[in-house]
Amino acid sequence: MKVGLIGFGKTGKAVASVILQNKKFSLSWVMKRSQTLENRTAAEYLGIDSEETGKIYSTASTSITELLDNQPVDVIIDFSSNSGIYAYGEAASERKIKIISAISHYTNKEKDYLKSLSNLTTVFWSPNITLGVNYLLFASKFLKKIAPWVDIEIIEEHFKGKDGISGTAIKIAEALDLEKEDINSVRAGGIVGKHEVVFGFPFQTVRLVHESISREAFGSGVIFVAENLVDKKEGLFNFEDILSPYFAV
Amino acid sequence: MKVGLIGFGKTGKAVASVILQNKKFSLSWVMKRSQTLENRTAAEYLGIDSEETGKIYSTASTSITELLDNQPVDVIIDFSSNSGIYAYGEAASERKIKIISAISHYTNKEKDYLKSLSNLTTVFWSPNITLGVNYLLFASKFLKKIAPWVDIEIIEEHFKGKDGISGTAIKIAEALDLEKEDINSVRAGGIVGKHEVVFGFPFQTVRLVHESISREAFGSGVIFVAENLVDKKEGLFNFEDILSPYFAV
Amino acid sequence: MKVGLIGFGKTGKAVASVILQNKKFSLSWVMKRSQTLENRTAAEYLGIDSEETGKIYSTASTSITELLDNQPVDVIIDFSSNSGIYAYGEAASERKIKIISAISHYTNKEKDYLKSLSNLTTVFWSPNITLGVNYLLFASKFLKKIAPWVDIEIIEEHFKGKDGISGTAIKIAEALDLEKEDINSVRAGGIVGKHEVVFGFPFQTVRLVHESISREAFGSGVIFVAENLVDKKEGLFNFEDILSPYFAV
Amino acid sequence: MKVGLIGFGKTGKAVASVILQNKKFSLSWVMKRSQTLENRTAAEYLGIDSEETGKIYSTASTSITELLDNQPVDVIIDFSSNSGIYAYGEAASERKIKIISAISHYTNKEKDYLKSLSNLTTVFWSPNITLGVNYLLFASKFLKKIAPWVDIEIIEEHFKGKDGISGTAIKIAEALDLEKEDINSVRAGGIVGKHEVVFGFPFQTVRLVHESISREAFGSGVIFVAENLVDKKEGLFNFEDILSPYFAV
Repeated sequence: MKVGLIGFGKTGKAVASVILQNKKFSLSWVMKRSQTLENRTAAEYLGIDSEETGKIYSTASTSITELLDNQPVDVIIDFSSNSGIYAYGEAASERKIKIISAISHYTNKEKDYLKSLSNLTTVFWSPNITLGVNYLLFASKFLKKIAPWVDIEIIEEHFKGKDGISGTAIKIAEALDLEKEDINSVRAGGIVGKHEVVFGFPFQTVRLVHESISREAFGSGVIFVAENLVDKKEGLFNFEDILSPYFAV
Repeated sequence: MKVGLIGFGKTGKAVASVILQNKKFSLSWVMKRSQTLENRTAAEYLGIDSEETGKIYSTASTSITELLDNQPVDVIIDFSSNSGIYAYGEAASERKIKIISAISHYTNKEKDYLKSLSNLTTVFWSPNITLGVNYLLFASKFLKKIAPWVDIEIIEEHFKGKDGISGTAIKIAEALDLEKEDINSVRAGGIVGKHEVVFGFPFQTVRLVHESISREAFGSGVIFVAENLVDKKEGLFNFEDILSPYFAV
Repeated sequence: MKVGLIGFGKTGKAVASVILQNKKFSLSWVMKRSQTLENRTAAEYLGIDSEETGKIYSTASTSITELLDNQPVDVIIDFSSNSGIYAYGEAASERKIKIISAISHYTNKEKDYLKSLSNLTTVFWSPNITLGVNYLLFASKFLKKIAPWVDIEIIEEHFKGKDGISGTAIKIAEALDLEKEDINSVRAGGIVGKHEVVFGFPFQTVRLVHESISREAFGSGVIFVAENLVDKKEGLFNFEDILSPYFAV
Repeated sequence: MKVGLIGFGKTGKAVASVILQNKKFSLSWVMKRSQTLENRTAAEYLGIDSEETGKIYSTASTSITELLDNQPVDVIIDFSSNSGIYAYGEAASERKIKIISAISHYTNKEKDYLKSLSNLTTVFWSPNITLGVNYLLFASKFLKKIAPWVDIEIIEEHFKGKDGISGTAIKIAEALDLEKEDINSVRAGGIVGKHEVVFGFPFQTVRLVHESISREAFGSGVIFVAENLVDKKEGLFNFEDILSPYFAV
């Protein structure tokens, strides 16, 4: 599967690294805003041996339509910013290229735009595209459904400098109808990221725990999503849509 | 719902205690092998205030058919031994009384017998009837289905004297196609019981953890099962049959 | 070692049960406020086979001085209330009987009184007399001393109904110069009690975790303390005084 | 403090990175076997802004005595291999340069050589130089000393490919008189490294847990050791020698 990557920040680089090392996927190109790495390749920059090297382009000097015509891809992965979608959305959907967006915070305007693009092509959006966190969300909701009266609290741990409650923890809390008071935030040292959902029953406890090791987890998530979108037609999908069919016995 | 309890060992007592304290259920009677507590009541023995006190009978001096005729129940809960089923199976199924068995080790003979009883009434069997462990099993299988290539190991912890690998850990391992080498057994002090399934992804980890606080967890499990069998017809059911419908969106 | 126990509430009973089952200790008697169990024995009440059965007395009908004269003990263990000390303090100290108090909240008045008693006999006081919690406290202070710049947070988990922050967590926080904001309190289901101290370093994490299984832990703590007070002379001691000598290489 | 670094493998690089970013230390130079990076600097290679850039030399083309004369250092850090010590030991000890070796496996021959060098200068050796693991070791031994009868097991978790039992787990087991059967090894996904010592008491559990986030932890350990060696005279030291004084009340 040929991939074009939009965005080459810390997470974008980690995602590129995972795609470059996956045999079923090839990284055709990377598109970024600034011109700093123009004409180098992702493979060389990241020190990875790979056939499809992922040449780096800048929106400042390359047109996305030209790029899509010259180096067509099957799917575009977006790890840029919430305005990134406007740069490639129309061109991609017209060419029936699937779109996978991992942008954290879209406004309603972008959400509407995604919806309109999904009339023409397969559009997927998840603010946290790791498999683990989405499984946690799904499995937690299921346990709450089984035992709606159970006490639930969330413990989330991150590095000292991280401001505010983790967005993932807030999303889990919303899915489980919890209050912000039910989220316990620990900030200490260099903890990469840990989310624990504690289910307290009268005589037993169930805990679902997700620990991040590195940003490359987003790359694995992208690959999981891309593989599960292969047979999907036009439409707007989220992670739950991808996980649900696995339950069909 | 009127309940008759077969078996009054440590776990049977804990289960009786939970039923006596639940307002939707009443404990009509307890049937046990020996005559030691005959004519006392479970409520008095356990020091619990309850309207339906659960008089204690012995199979040595009371016939099960008489008991079922004089004090009919909606469901029989079996925490006795694997031969217990023969004492009440026929009488219960003829009277359309539902059967919930929590016996750990049935031979094929008992399994066949359960099957035959299930032509006449609702029969449920689970070797570990806690909600938490069954959820763990279910949710683990689901994650394995999503990511069949993930590395999985089990850590189970119990009190120092516990012999052999925990039966629950073996059941989880079987459900996940693991080898016995993938089960790590810790035996230390008075640990009541902890099962942890570790899912190791390249860049993240997911853990499902169940901790037992006390045997009363079996009582909560019985109540959960009984409530979910209310609308069930004849047939043989296990815990997965009870959990699956919660996924139907 | 002959023991007299003051107080026979939930924790007092658990402590009695541990002492009755320990071969080096014998429970001479139990003294409680109300007369409800008068003239029964702790062994019979708790269903424990033991030579020294621990007859139960009430302060309403028995004088402590008479009791100490007729059934002398080596040590008095106090699990009653903060005023309990006044009932036996003078009589015990005059007879050189060691005093081990596990009362949670003394006012300055009682602390002063303990101090005065310690001129005559060995007096020990610890608001949480479990070995585990005191080890946690000690080992945490040591790590903080080694790495004063490390980020520390506390996670404490207890059953749903528990009001306010756990006293043990507050004590740990004070020992480590933490703010109340650094304590995260989880309240869910029937969790007996868990305290975790998280030390976050830039590239590694250290966690000290204590989990209570049951109240009998207080009994083990009492025995540990009593054994370590054998050679102590007059004076007022706390748990740190007991643990420190183990470091002397 | 001026530092010379021997060895520039994965861990050596991580250590260099930590030293370059610490204001109290400066990395004077790096010495490695192969000539691949000769004449580049550690700072430039690692992408770190730093005043003291750490020029890279190769033993193939530079003599250690010349290097020590031209660019004298206060301490030599050795993350090379077990034969590395022979290249610089004599030259360093004659110049009273302190030696910190983090080599995992020395034979008796190297241990004897270290001993002889320690007649002239301060020599420190620890096969695992992270603060966390050494604290774990120290605090675990202490708890075992307090409660010699407690049940102890070790759970160590590492990435899937790691062969054999972790060396750190073996060291902890030796320090606590445990058998190899008491070590439980989990191998799954990309787990960086986790060591948990479980202390099972009859009615409570204490756990000491160390989790590695990244190799840079070795750099922090080196800095901690170097700072604690400042006032040390000639002699051979290990991590316990460094930690013990913190207990002196």
